[in-house]
Amino acid sequence: MRPKLKVWVTFGDRLKFGDGRAQLLELIAERGSLRKAASELGMSYRNAWGYLRELEEAAGFAFLERVPGGGPSSGMRLTEDAKRFLKRYRQFRNALEGDMKRQFERTYSRKETS
Amino acid sequence: MRPKLKVWVTFGDRLKFGDGRAQLLELIAERGSLRKAASELGMSYRNAWGYLRELEEAAGFAFLERVPGGGPSSGMRLTEDAKRFLKRYRQFRNALEGDMKRQFERTYSRKETS
Repeated sequence: MRPKLKVWVTFGDRLKFGDGRAQLLELIAERGSLRKAASELGMSYRNAWGYLRELEEAAGFAFLERVPGGGPSSGMRLTEDAKRFLKRYRQFRNALEGDMKRQFERTYSRKETS
Repeated sequence: MRPKLKVWVTFGDRLKFGDGRAQLLELIAERGSLRKAASELGMSYRNAWGYLRELEEAAGFAFLERVPGGGPSSGMRLTEDAKRFLKRYRQFRNALEGDMKRQFERTYSRKETS
């Protein structure tokens, strides 16, 4: 028997940011392309773009920017605000993963007959 | 912005026990009937029954028993093992909910410019 966890931060009633969206941002940063990142995750470009627009509106800052100085083939990158947001989400999520293991141990390691 | 959590305990690769199933067990205990409990949660009796059989097999103990001494209309109840299992899940889950709030506070209350 093992514990399992899903964590999100939510904006309002509807918009959620969790592991899947964190992975999308990380892939955009790696590939320099929203289109490539979405495609690798099996998302449509349209969905990924729509999600990011909603996220930017809810968070109140831009997540993506064009790499400056490049030609038409130059790519996208995360803004500093987006990097900070992503880093905090990872910290939050990883800390909670540790808490989960500790709480599970504490709750379930007691003898079944107790 | 608010944090949100889902927690399960898993058996093997496939079988999960989380809030929805905990609610099913609680409703069975309240109503004395798997059929009524499943129906209130919008589950088919067949699905609820199948799930509980799998859970019993994975956990290695019975979750449900007939109330003894009754006639054909007497109901179902949770076994002592099932009550203990459910109580532990609730303890684990609630403790983690508290951890989540604390970790969220710790991670996100720092100034955005830091």
